[in-house]
Amino acid sequence: MTLSNLIIHYQQRIEQQLDMLLASHASPAGKLQEAMRYAVLGGGKRIRPVLVYASTEACGGDITFADPAACAVELIHAYSLVHDDLPAMDDDDLRRGQPTCHKAFDEATAILAGDALQSLAFETITGMYNNSANLSPTQQLNQVKTLAVAAGANGMVTGQALDLAAVGDQQMTLAELEQMHRHKTGALIRASVQLGAIAANATTEQHQALTHFADNIGLAFQVKDDILDVEMDTSVLGKRQGADAARNKPTYPALLGLEIARQKAHHLYHEAIKALSMFDEHAKPLRDLASFIVERHH
Amino acid sequence: MTLSNLIIHYQQRIEQQLDMLLASHASPAGKLQEAMRYAVLGGGKRIRPVLVYASTEACGGDITFADPAACAVELIHAYSLVHDDLPAMDDDDLRRGQPTCHKAFDEATAILAGDALQSLAFETITGMYNNSANLSPTQQLNQVKTLAVAAGANGMVTGQALDLAAVGDQQMTLAELEQMHRHKTGALIRASVQLGAIAANATTEQHQALTHFADNIGLAFQVKDDILDVEMDTSVLGKRQGADAARNKPTYPALLGLEIARQKAHHLYHEAIKALSMFDEHAKPLRDLASFIVERHH
Repeated sequence: MTLSNLIIHYQQRIEQQLDMLLASHASPAGKLQEAMRYAVLGGGKRIRPVLVYASTEACGGDITFADPAACAVELIHAYSLVHDDLPAMDDDDLRRGQPTCHKAFDEATAILAGDALQSLAFETITGMYNNSANLSPTQQLNQVKTLAVAAGANGMVTGQALDLAAVGDQQMTLAELEQMHRHKTGALIRASVQLGAIAANATTEQHQALTHFADNIGLAFQVKDDILDVEMDTSVLGKRQGADAARNKPTYPALLGLEIARQKAHHLYHEAIKALSMFDEHAKPLRDLASFIVERHH
Repeated sequence: MTLSNLIIHYQQRIEQQLDMLLASHASPAGKLQEAMRYAVLGGGKRIRPVLVYASTEACGGDITFADPAACAVELIHAYSLVHDDLPAMDDDDLRRGQPTCHKAFDEATAILAGDALQSLAFETITGMYNNSANLSPTQQLNQVKTLAVAAGANGMVTGQALDLAAVGDQQMTLAELEQMHRHKTGALIRASVQLGAIAANATTEQHQALTHFADNIGLAFQVKDDILDVEMDTSVLGKRQGADAARNKPTYPALLGLEIARQKAHHLYHEAIKALSMFDEHAKPLRDLASFIVERHH
């Protein structure tokens, strides 16, 4: 499975935007600034910003207006990885084959870098350095609210709390696992398409269709992640093989079996594609991204 | 030194607002929600929200419009205390005479509670549950930006990073100490008066005067804190006596001597009062607060 040219274009665009954004924010605390750059510019698939751009495009909008939100959602994602990797949380030494932020720097710096990245996310929505393509105050405010709700105690952070509470819980049901994932990764993926829709002044119908799309690919992404965790070895995945299973975390393959888990991922993919039926060829990047999510090998 | 009735009224108002705000945000992760309440509702002088209200009042505004920003700035302050107390940072077991958040719960929960409180701060500015006294989108957006800049890598977080870097640094100059404090506590205190000014649609002159006031009392607050750290014992202050000196942190008394540090606090107080000369008796709470900051005994 290869990525379409437009998605690669979005990925290149977000790399450049993030780099410029961080370069424009100097801090007198040099190590903090370095850690922030390390956490954000260390690669990754950039699925969330790609979703922002692709949703703006699907609604017929100009992706220039989506830059601040695309950066913001990736900053939130990057901060969450830094904090989740901490010794008190998932205690991971590697991320994408590189030392995690607290290994490359130290724990205090990693905590602070994460905190500063979250602030920077909200600052960025309210206006970017050299970006003259500003959304209206109401649009920006809607983006702040959308992102804040998705990131916080009604979204991502609760997902991580539920995930930590589930370690070693052999009794977790499928419903509880889905509740955890809907918060941990689903909330931010849903926010990504909504941020893109806001940037394009989307209709209510477009908004709802994109949200339904996101809920399905969000879950598909997670099911696929669990499958990859079982299938892949360290060299490809960049983290310890079967890391989730090893720490006794519930997974879809563990609850459903590998084959049913694969079927579930494909079912969710088809639901996602169906949700896009009202969109024309401008939604091709979204459709491609959905394929990529269930077909990817890492 | 006792607090004026209006300041006590502001303190009671913010307690009630924070309590309602947190009660209206249920999370399926029960421990996380409990830790958030513990971190926010555990008392404290509420100086930042009081500054928001008092600044709105000074500019002739209605403090009902200042509720969301008053809550938001205290949420940011509360999250920063939770993270600063962590073992990897200041490693404090007590805060206001009570176990710190990671002691009362656990480290992971404390990190996540802090993260969620930061998100909630920005969400709150964009609209509160039962609050019909909404500011315009432009005002709310200005508040988001003001708070985000003050909280992040150009403000509070950099202050904590500089503070950690300074531990054991016997060579720190007065200029470096002030740079640290201007970021660590000064940025949020400055933001507090600006948030209040925005809520009141203040003039540029009012804005500038309040900012000058805040910069002076912000520093006065810190000098006074250092003096109290030397003077007080654990039972009154709720933390270990001379805790800063014990961990070899630079302080104003250490750099200037206790007597000159006291003079400096009073000089800053008088500068702050001078900055308020353009305001009428509506600025009485601000003047009272400035007196309280330099006269307080804990």
